Amino acid sequence: MAESELPQPPEHLSSEEFRKHGHALIDWIADYWDRIEDLPVESSVSPGSVRELLPPEAPQKGEPFADLIRDLDEIVMPGITHWQHPSWFSFFPANASPPSVLAELVSAGLGVQGMLWSTSPAATEIESHVLDWLVDLMDLPSEWKTTSLGGGVLQMSASDSTHTSLVVARHQAMKRGVNPTAMVAYASTQTHSSIQKGATVAGYRHIRLIPVDDKQAMDISALRAALASDKAEGLVPVFVAATLGTTGTTAVDPIRPIGEICQEENLWLHVDAAYAGNAMICPEFRHHQDGLELVDSYTFNPHKWLMVNFDCSVFYVADRSPLIDCLSILPPYLKNEASESGAVIDYRDWHVPLGRRFRSLKLWWVIRSYGVEGLQSMIRYHVALTERLAEKLKSDPRFEVVAPHPFALVCFRCTAGDEATQSLAEAVNGSPNVAWTGSELDGRPMIRVSIGQRTTDEGHVDALWDLIDELA
Amino acid sequence: MAESELPQPPEHLSSEEFRKHGHALIDWIADYWDRIEDLPVESSVSPGSVRELLPPEAPQKGEPFADLIRDLDEIVMPGITHWQHPSWFSFFPANASPPSVLAELVSAGLGVQGMLWSTSPAATEIESHVLDWLVDLMDLPSEWKTTSLGGGVLQMSASDSTHTSLVVARHQAMKRGVNPTAMVAYASTQTHSSIQKGATVAGYRHIRLIPVDDKQAMDISALRAALASDKAEGLVPVFVAATLGTTGTTAVDPIRPIGEICQEENLWLHVDAAYAGNAMICPEFRHHQDGLELVDSYTFNPHKWLMVNFDCSVFYVADRSPLIDCLSILPPYLKNEASESGAVIDYRDWHVPLGRRFRSLKLWWVIRSYGVEGLQSMIRYHVALTERLAEKLKSDPRFEVVAPHPFALVCFRCTAGDEATQSLAEAVNGSPNVAWTGSELDGRPMIRVSIGQRTTDEGHVDALWDLIDELA
Repeated sequence: MAESELPQPPEHLSSEEFRKHGHALIDWIADYWDRIEDLPVESSVSPGSVRELLPPEAPQKGEPFADLIRDLDEIVMPGITHWQHPSWFSFFPANASPPSVLAELVSAGLGVQGMLWSTSPAATEIESHVLDWLVDLMDLPSEWKTTSLGGGVLQMSASDSTHTSLVVARHQAMKRGVNPTAMVAYASTQTHSSIQKGATVAGYRHIRLIPVDDKQAMDISALRAALASDKAEGLVPVFVAATLGTTGTTAVDPIRPIGEICQEENLWLHVDAAYAGNAMICPEFRHHQDGLELVDSYTFNPHKWLMVNFDCSVFYVADRSPLIDCLSILPPYLKNEASESGAVIDYRDWHVPLGRRFRSLKLWWVIRSYGVEGLQSMIRYHVALTERLAEKLKSDPRFEVVAPHPFALVCFRCTAGDEATQSLAEAVNGSPNVAWTGSELDGRPMIRVSIGQRTTDEGHVDALWDLIDELA
Repeated sequence: MAESELPQPPEHLSSEEFRKHGHALIDWIADYWDRIEDLPVESSVSPGSVRELLPPEAPQKGEPFADLIRDLDEIVMPGITHWQHPSWFSFFPANASPPSVLAELVSAGLGVQGMLWSTSPAATEIESHVLDWLVDLMDLPSEWKTTSLGGGVLQMSASDSTHTSLVVARHQAMKRGVNPTAMVAYASTQTHSSIQKGATVAGYRHIRLIPVDDKQAMDISALRAALASDKAEGLVPVFVAATLGTTGTTAVDPIRPIGEICQEENLWLHVDAAYAGNAMICPEFRHHQDGLELVDSYTFNPHKWLMVNFDCSVFYVADRSPLIDCLSILPPYLKNEASESGAVIDYRDWHVPLGRRFRSLKLWWVIRSYGVEGLQSMIRYHVALTERLAEKLKSDPRFEVVAPHPFALVCFRCTAGDEATQSLAEAVNGSPNVAWTGSELDGRPMIRVSIGQRTTDEGHVDALWDLIDELA
């Protein structure tokens, strides 16, 4: 084909234009963070109202970049619920931070695929190294390091990590000859929905939700009873999930006794520490995870409460062999010398997706920018703010705190009854200035106050208390 | 707790510092893109050499931000393989673009969680809307729109999309009473490893890799024979994956005849168009996907060849009911009015993970910034460059092109024999100026040249040809 016959490539933003718009968008984000308290926490648009503002067809010709930024303000922002608002007390936090956002930018600019060590060695090695750092920082078993038998890997969400652990446990059991239709997975009634979902996705036909005690923690005797009953019926227990910090109330399942049962019965023990695992960088919380040497896998989300913007979920395994045995498939186009030497980690073998972003850059930059002490002080500050609010609730006869609050979530009800709780939940959420989550415990309404945004301070928590006081 | 007793929160980068470092990093990326051709395409560090530069323990105190940027240059960059290099001819492209990288930045700055419509309506509605746009742009069946029976959702990778389709197919079959241990999934021998991996993860015990014809496309009579043989043995065919653009040679399985078989036999038909789906924005390639009205699910990756930086994988289903039926689990803390009204999409019910980034912003900005014509011209330009190189290879007796090249990948061998091919593959990869993939076809070595980086032009392809010419 002669050169003249080649079609024209598209026009791209020039280096100068990228710099100009990039600087403008950095400033846009800084301005957004500066003014976020002036915005209503939750979007109040009605279903379909964002789509109504979008043209029915994609544009044939490219549009000026300024138009995209304009629509960010005019179309996108009204439809945003501000998870980074300091009066975000809803769900769990998803707290971002300046170094994390900048690392995300750099990762996007580099645009590397870390599926294999060889496709960008720095992406893999920084991931392994930083996750090994965290083993020390959280006092996890040293065998979980990549330099030992286990190792950590970043996934998108705790749902992915949990699903992976369920799949590996199933795979191991199948190798022992267990029929998958007979396999049973166990978790508490307070467990996160991702465990039930992950078990369904992984093909478990039997999922037992074990009753909890008065602290919302898994009842060990009920677990023993369920195991015995299932075995009597010819089923095969395979997997137990213990939760460190349930979503409902941040309850903590007793890992050591559960682990002892799992050892006796040859069950895979997975710990879902999605939220509360972050607190383990402070020694004073680590008694909650006593027994980790009995655990097969563990997940926690720095994208919840460690200032790494979503997504960044950590998944540890005590032994990486069964994981890789289950998930490795090697086509010819992925063969390479480094992998064949066995000297490197190829993270594609550690999870379902093949491609992967350079997410460890975020975790590395956040840890370095804040230092361990900075991260610890954030956790301690949030926990102290939570205690302060809990004290106010406890000392006021209009309220009762309904569960222990070992971390930075407090759950309460109105003593005047369920209707009062429900009304208060709705009234506070009706205010544009705060958001929290109305939920249920034992079939009765309760209110969850989760304190964990990066910029939440005592003023925001005091303002929340004033609102509760006024509306109750 | 008295105010004086509250611990101190950590110090954060100020708004001014964020602006300063943010501007510097925007410039750092622009400089990187400007100078990328001066860098060796592939990192040549040896295993462990990046980790050796990292301290054994995380820092206790926060470090100055300037140190992080310094280490980006000194520690990270030597370990980076430059997927954005214009002489990247390896694997498939993972092409990023300025508007996409800036959208990733904004998405990180907003830091919203789009798990439910209500947790940021704009994130969900822009995703649905833009994926509906793409149905029109790619001439997919209009029933696949979210405004009709089906719908699109963004996942991390085609592996995730394919895995999801395998799980839904299994779930549907189980509801019909099929024993999961009897289920069989089918794909061609040229299929991507993610199909075999996804089937294993989803618990399929029987995976049949169907032989291909002389164009590397699935042999329909072999598929019929495999189905008959499995049924005769009491197994139950459940799932077929057809590939539109195999990873080995971009071969195209015949969707219509496969679809007709799937209709007859009540099988789930999934189309893996991870790479070649992107070409469907140009009408002249659409004959390759004739028969889509017979398809149940379809995946393609704008993060491969549509200038949206990783991750951004599109997953379409013709009917969203079985997907949501399989993947929806609703705990009390996720209940909300909008979801209960049925008027909105909650994308958490469309995939394994719960949390999700605002990834559609990238796709929206790329489509708007380039316009449909800009995207089409990129595809056409890359295909034309590929044809040009293929012509040179075909007209030179030293080489043979070993498979059709309908898109922007050409595969060839040296006519002098396997050893010559192998030597050439290694010699070219030994040059710091280009990267391509040595692979295998029918057990014999071949070389894949994938042309798809955003900035690749005729000069880069001509330089590659000169190198081939010199080293062959």
